Amino acid sequence: METFEVRTTSRTEYVEITRQVCEIVERSGVERGAALVCVPHTTAAVTVNEHADPDVMSDLMTALSSLVPRHGSYAHAEGNADAHVKAVLVGSSALLPIEGGKVVLGTWQGVFFCEFDGPRRRRVTVQVLACGAAGR
Amino acid sequence: METFEVRTTSRTEYVEITRQVCEIVERSGVERGAALVCVPHTTAAVTVNEHADPDVMSDLMTALSSLVPRHGSYAHAEGNADAHVKAVLVGSSALLPIEGGKVVLGTWQGVFFCEFDGPRRRRVTVQVLACGAAGR
Amino acid sequence: METFEVRTTSRTEYVEITRQVCEIVERSGVERGAALVCVPHTTAAVTVNEHADPDVMSDLMTALSSLVPRHGSYAHAEGNADAHVKAVLVGSSALLPIEGGKVVLGTWQGVFFCEFDGPRRRRVTVQVLACGAAGR
Repeated sequence: METFEVRTTSRTEYVEITRQVCEIVERSGVERGAALVCVPHTTAAVTVNEHADPDVMSDLMTALSSLVPRHGSYAHAEGNADAHVKAVLVGSSALLPIEGGKVVLGTWQGVFFCEFDGPRRRRVTVQVLACGAAGR
Repeated sequence: METFEVRTTSRTEYVEITRQVCEIVERSGVERGAALVCVPHTTAAVTVNEHADPDVMSDLMTALSSLVPRHGSYAHAEGNADAHVKAVLVGSSALLPIEGGKVVLGTWQGVFFCEFDGPRRRRVTVQVLACGAAGR
Repeated sequence: METFEVRTTSRTEYVEITRQVCEIVERSGVERGAALVCVPHTTAAVTVNEHADPDVMSDLMTALSSLVPRHGSYAHAEGNADAHVKAVLVGSSALLPIEGGKVVLGTWQGVFFCEFDGPRRRRVTVQVLACGAAGR
């Protein structure tokens, strides 16, 4: 398993991590399989969506903030309950297929780290799984 | 990795793909493992939910449309920002366990392709992962 | 694949299942890989989030109920359409990395079963995937 760091600079923010993930997969030497990208955090998430127009991810962050308001009738005393809810809705991991030693992504797809309670130093882990002997 | 095509006929629509996924897994010869079902698109998604009553998936599509309205204050100029947000909420992949050479699904579970910006020709990929030598 | 049971006692409820998942992984003997945790149900889900303060998961359940109201204009006649929608938003599975024979979770992360249409007897399955021979 490999780990890399992401530094965020505001409370909500997305950071593209496609390059880091692809490099780890290429270094692994795995020809066919899948790459599990995880955040070991509970107020951040990982997703796969459009990387061509930055407005798309920015609209996503805005839409999430209107779905899950920052100040609501939350019991959690730290004031970041909204960040936990957003993290669950987006998900703490993504699994990407590997073929020919490379991550398979659609033309418009990129991998994104989503920060919901920054700014912070965050970590992302990548575990590369091979298809296995029986995988023809 | 195998790929198959899904054709959608309206803007939002779900298409059951359980049979195609199960056939690919059976052809793979993998006895124990997991099947990674992905859409290489950013305005479509994959999910696992009830296949017995079509009203369930249809209610899901309606509920998503009321959570994420088509026309909001989005920055993305293509007019399909809502479709990207829905795709992230549902997710671009599903991972299904394989045991005894077959996909393991609950009695009521089916695998569904979700279209949020059709009609289009779409692709679905399936990567079959074996448990591996150390998986007892 | 291993299976264990979860009994829920109210309509919406979360149950921490981290211990059961970790024990299955340790028994499997897999040193490096990933554990696929699934619910074979369509009105329940699995997620990874904070286990230290129970208010976090309880706020999540409340936030989901306000996003997806129990009584809306649903077509599904069983009266639990909201539970299906919540199950899709949270997701029916989680994939956790394994390293050194153990599940890798962040300091604050736990694994949770989410009930959206209880009380019921539910099942959770865990399929342990090894990294495979080519996974260096």
